[in-house]
Amino acid sequence: MKEISLSGGRYQNCLREIRSRASDVEDEKKGIKIAKKDWENLHLHIASYNNFPTAAGLASSAAGFACLVYSLAKLMNVKEDNSQLSAIARQGSGSACRSLYGGFVKWIMGKDDNGSDSIAVQLVDEKHWDELVILIAVVSSRQKETSSTSGMRETVETSPLVLHRAKEVVPKRVVEMEEAIKSRNFPAFARLTCSDSNQFHAVCLDTSPPIFYMNDTSHRIISCVEKWNRSEGTPQVAYTFDAGPNAVLIARNRKVAALLLQRLLFHFPPQSDADLNSYIVGDKSVLMDAGIQDLKDVEALPPPPEIKDNVPTQKFKGDVSYFICTRPGRGPVLLTEESQALLNPETGLPK
Amino acid sequence: MKEISLSGGRYQNCLREIRSRASDVEDEKKGIKIAKKDWENLHLHIASYNNFPTAAGLASSAAGFACLVYSLAKLMNVKEDNSQLSAIARQGSGSACRSLYGGFVKWIMGKDDNGSDSIAVQLVDEKHWDELVILIAVVSSRQKETSSTSGMRETVETSPLVLHRAKEVVPKRVVEMEEAIKSRNFPAFARLTCSDSNQFHAVCLDTSPPIFYMNDTSHRIISCVEKWNRSEGTPQVAYTFDAGPNAVLIARNRKVAALLLQRLLFHFPPQSDADLNSYIVGDKSVLMDAGIQDLKDVEALPPPPEIKDNVPTQKFKGDVSYFICTRPGRGPVLLTEESQALLNPETGLPK
Repeated sequence: MKEISLSGGRYQNCLREIRSRASDVEDEKKGIKIAKKDWENLHLHIASYNNFPTAAGLASSAAGFACLVYSLAKLMNVKEDNSQLSAIARQGSGSACRSLYGGFVKWIMGKDDNGSDSIAVQLVDEKHWDELVILIAVVSSRQKETSSTSGMRETVETSPLVLHRAKEVVPKRVVEMEEAIKSRNFPAFARLTCSDSNQFHAVCLDTSPPIFYMNDTSHRIISCVEKWNRSEGTPQVAYTFDAGPNAVLIARNRKVAALLLQRLLFHFPPQSDADLNSYIVGDKSVLMDAGIQDLKDVEALPPPPEIKDNVPTQKFKGDVSYFICTRPGRGPVLLTEESQALLNPETGLPK
Repeated sequence: MKEISLSGGRYQNCLREIRSRASDVEDEKKGIKIAKKDWENLHLHIASYNNFPTAAGLASSAAGFACLVYSLAKLMNVKEDNSQLSAIARQGSGSACRSLYGGFVKWIMGKDDNGSDSIAVQLVDEKHWDELVILIAVVSSRQKETSSTSGMRETVETSPLVLHRAKEVVPKRVVEMEEAIKSRNFPAFARLTCSDSNQFHAVCLDTSPPIFYMNDTSHRIISCVEKWNRSEGTPQVAYTFDAGPNAVLIARNRKVAALLLQRLLFHFPPQSDADLNSYIVGDKSVLMDAGIQDLKDVEALPPPPEIKDNVPTQKFKGDVSYFICTRPGRGPVLLTEESQALLNPETGLPK
């Protein structure tokens, strides 16, 4: 547990916006009554727990800000709907606006200069495409590059290709992607996901100075997926990389996810002294489906058939820190079970 | 020495084109007389030696085809000038057309469908910009990726950005580059060289499936150069990467080249058992200027001042195979000294 300052503009923006929308709160059972005007003067204890790697380019700050804004809105009886809350969360972390929803979400660019209409909307909820399974390869930080202080702003300012991407390529892809999601068209979904991830990293490379988020491990994971997809004749797995080397791999169904995990473990086995249980985290059932119970099963994995023509089968032990197995999930949810609270209900302090 | 078949189309094209342009040859001193029509029936022994790494994405086949075409043209008394020979060499290896000249060369796209006007012209010879020093980092092949069978053709067919690059970005850059070279404007030259290298690799990444020529070592070399250039306020070194991970680094003068070599050796020292003499090949005087005589001098190199703010100074021993020190050079030259010939003048067989 670590105490961090909330004096930064990103936190203060969210707190101010939520406070200004607070309503009267009354809970007769608990004997709580807070008038709208009193929220301005009340202090808050905030405790946060994240089971996801932070600062690894996996949108953990987006998840955090979405959770913060949603929780505060529930606490202060804010009447705004999720799309209005998404505009508030966006002031904490741009992509946080998307994290107010589960399933598939679209971030609408908006037209206003002040960004007030740049909000997220849910396309379909997490039940709409229930087959998908997500494997995240958290790429070892021992390979971490000189940290890049550059970001999207520098790309927009210096890449000669990014405007063409934004004006000509992305709008068409967004339309195609919505259609692919609504009709659960996995091949189209995968092609768009992979192409757009690659193009995002292409414009990062076209930035001056260039930004490298992917590393050799990222490239190897892409090559593995591309080769397999090609050998199957139709995409089985989509990959996408955000602002870091970690691969987010989306398998078309459970069966494919198990075959994918076998391939990943073949190429990227854990260190010899590793605990398989902490090498594969999240939904362990994918590991069961892949027929892997211990390190011996990993060592016994045969090379995937699609690489049979390639000369040496290289292994990259230690290049992946761990894998997360998960699925498209819900948005923020209010837990009513008091034992799950992070604050002690008596003292208001972290447990 | 290795015998290779010349039955491939690339060789046969060059041989046919040169043969069809052969003239009478007469050397009274040696008592040689070959009539134009006889070239069609004569057989040839060809011996070739390359002191440059081959198949490493460093344009060795371009150099080889330029040399082949030039040598055959001299042998068979072909009257065509270098720009016409460049069109023939282009049929062996596209970029070979540029290698018929020294100094700075421009490859003109041409307009004809048959490519007959796609030729190279020399902008300035190698004496025009005499200060430049080139260091080539031959990146270790132990890091070699799954070989990519994809190429420029796939990029042209599948990248949504490449057409914009070809139509909007490259033509302007070519004009600016010609100007920078003619006026020896190093900052402009460096900015264009680096940006265009990065954009070439960006469209490779935007290809489906994506092509990765650069690897983590390439990225680290770029970061090292970018950081140094930024700290100096004006570019000292330009980098460019062709179809491979090897860095071609162009220093604005000898003094900068020595400082660059110190930086490169600091980050990429040779293996402990390596011979410094075979780790730095070519013009060893750069090594002298850098004050490095043996491995102990390499170990004693201090971190470059521009990285002082960065937390740990990582070293990447073994990630570079060797460095080549060179300068912008001449095009092909006919050697008159018989002792340098690769063929025995009596037997016509390789020595």
